[in-house]
Amino acid sequence: MKREAAYQTDNGAATPRCVVVDLGTRSYDILIGPGLVDEAGTEIARRLPGIRAAVVTDETVAGLHLDRLSIALRAAGIDHSTIVLPAGETTKSFAHLTQVVDEVLAQRLERDDAVIALGGGVIGDLAGFASAIVRRGMRFVQMPTTLLAQVDSSVGGKTGINSPRGKNLVGAFHQPSLVLADTALLDTLSPREFAAGYAEIVKYGLIDRPDFFDWLDRNCEAVFAGGPERADAIRQSCKAKAVVVAADERENAGRALLNLGHTFGHALEAAVGYDSRRLVHGEGVAIGMTLAYRFSTERGLCPAEDADRGEAHLRAAGLPTRIGEIPGAPLTTAQLMAGIAQDKKVKRGRPTFILTRGIGRAFLEGDVAPAAVEAFLDREIAR
Amino acid sequence: MKREAAYQTDNGAATPRCVVVDLGTRSYDILIGPGLVDEAGTEIARRLPGIRAAVVTDETVAGLHLDRLSIALRAAGIDHSTIVLPAGETTKSFAHLTQVVDEVLAQRLERDDAVIALGGGVIGDLAGFASAIVRRGMRFVQMPTTLLAQVDSSVGGKTGINSPRGKNLVGAFHQPSLVLADTALLDTLSPREFAAGYAEIVKYGLIDRPDFFDWLDRNCEAVFAGGPERADAIRQSCKAKAVVVAADERENAGRALLNLGHTFGHALEAAVGYDSRRLVHGEGVAIGMTLAYRFSTERGLCPAEDADRGEAHLRAAGLPTRIGEIPGAPLTTAQLMAGIAQDKKVKRGRPTFILTRGIGRAFLEGDVAPAAVEAFLDREIAR
Repeated sequence: MKREAAYQTDNGAATPRCVVVDLGTRSYDILIGPGLVDEAGTEIARRLPGIRAAVVTDETVAGLHLDRLSIALRAAGIDHSTIVLPAGETTKSFAHLTQVVDEVLAQRLERDDAVIALGGGVIGDLAGFASAIVRRGMRFVQMPTTLLAQVDSSVGGKTGINSPRGKNLVGAFHQPSLVLADTALLDTLSPREFAAGYAEIVKYGLIDRPDFFDWLDRNCEAVFAGGPERADAIRQSCKAKAVVVAADERENAGRALLNLGHTFGHALEAAVGYDSRRLVHGEGVAIGMTLAYRFSTERGLCPAEDADRGEAHLRAAGLPTRIGEIPGAPLTTAQLMAGIAQDKKVKRGRPTFILTRGIGRAFLEGDVAPAAVEAFLDREIAR
Repeated sequence: MKREAAYQTDNGAATPRCVVVDLGTRSYDILIGPGLVDEAGTEIARRLPGIRAAVVTDETVAGLHLDRLSIALRAAGIDHSTIVLPAGETTKSFAHLTQVVDEVLAQRLERDDAVIALGGGVIGDLAGFASAIVRRGMRFVQMPTTLLAQVDSSVGGKTGINSPRGKNLVGAFHQPSLVLADTALLDTLSPREFAAGYAEIVKYGLIDRPDFFDWLDRNCEAVFAGGPERADAIRQSCKAKAVVVAADERENAGRALLNLGHTFGHALEAAVGYDSRRLVHGEGVAIGMTLAYRFSTERGLCPAEDADRGEAHLRAAGLPTRIGEIPGAPLTTAQLMAGIAQDKKVKRGRPTFILTRGIGRAFLEGDVAPAAVEAFLDREIAR
């Protein structure tokens, strides 16, 4: 079978495996491909000559990949320490932030030195936030080890921790100097974790790239199987995000589209108390995107067949799309409405929703009556 | 006696009491004059219509000024809570940062709402940092109540807390939306505290405004006595800082000149364990600037009479200028060299010094051999 290249050719990139995030003097490269852990020392030293570093990772990832990274850094002459934290969402706390900041300062790292985050979104967000506030900002290299982190959280400079009041309520915009996405690391992910990351890939198609959605519809199995289609899908996702981030670094308007499915998704995660046995982020986004499409259909904005097509694709990828699929005690509309009210993008008490006119035609809608959302959720919970 | 206006006329300002910090879409006003606490509600509501707010202050300032501010905010329809912290440098900690962040989130303030910092540098730095990281950045109004904060820390967007490893080692660049410097509040300061703030005013003359230094030399007594010369001196200081900040927001190069006297000054503060009974920040800066001028003279860069003139002016203002004047156990060169090594502006192990070719002719020098500094400090300690 002839391999079908992703829906458009790369351009503006230094090499086929490189996506550039264009932010003027703070532009940076995202390298995507197998084996980048072993090349990390060379790639970092080439761009950031003379740096020292602190590698932040978690116990699970350390067991799998840390030795190889340390060897690669040493081979390139990068003096570094390692900070190994417990795995899991609860690590995104003020307590662990304080610990990382203190260990980085204890090493006397300077502004031009780097924190290297080796891990999934939790490690990337926490280590990135620490690097944003040590000496009011030092360098930062993302080495995402999950599909979700490779296509979403490692790109764009959002960093942060959770508060007892909600997820990601404390943080900073702080761009990395380099992202190294080693696609070979994804072979260690569970099928559920891979599918959860895939939801964010589908998101880019559903927002504004109908051609990419079509390509995914034809190549979904190949992306899951690994091989060049997987790296293609990751590259296209990073490129889609890079374009949005370059146009709206601090989430004033355009960047908000990246939250398709996330207002509902975050409310679902909050409602299950962020219990990953019941729901992980990507699953929340899959259900949330389906809800956003169905809500748009109900409001006469989106053809029903587009909403159905989006949902069918997510289901084929092994993702949940209905609130009722979440295991455990049934969720209530009241729980979800409370979560929506605490959304970071709330303005003057009104959350902004991302609605759509069809596949790849998402848009921002600030004027949605809470009563309409409530009635819709009542029906969806019963679906 | 005819009042002598400060060395140049205001320009680019909306009103005589207004200095504009020009940062494009993030530009903001600094209002300077007596009675601004009572006008705070009107001035804030005019620029940030519809906001809610959290006022952060300390116990000392709360007793003096909080009631008046609350009345003014209420009169303008600004719904607000108050967070009152212990007074003193130890409040700039992770523990109090966490407290402020949590209380702001508990109030469900949004990105467009504001934290209002009513206090000196400690409160401004802490509350500003909290506002920088809540929801990755919310609005922030500075209401500096000390001379030091009015002429220095409230302008320019540097926020942060201390670490057990050193002062201000954790923080963010986050610009306020408005600064309200009520010069009438300065009447409650002790003479020592006023003099310490005055050191930072003199600094602007010593860096690159010889005319302003001359003006201060003639008007020092009037500035201390209060009246229009005081507000003039504050306005000129804010303007000097605003120009530098606008040109170099994140301290890459030009902004570093604002640290004249601070590399030595911070080392002195660290050496006394930040014991304010022995040395406050402005006193450290006064000694530090004298050291920078004398070191420059020793290296053949600065005429001795300029160093003498700077020192004489600071002494006339009641400030210390010699290391040996610091009460308590004599400081050692080794202590000071250790403090210099932990400076935030260290690059590749070499601190950047601000040296000078005369009054108002300061410049950056990255190439100073530690041995030369050490020998100089040995002599200065004995002076």
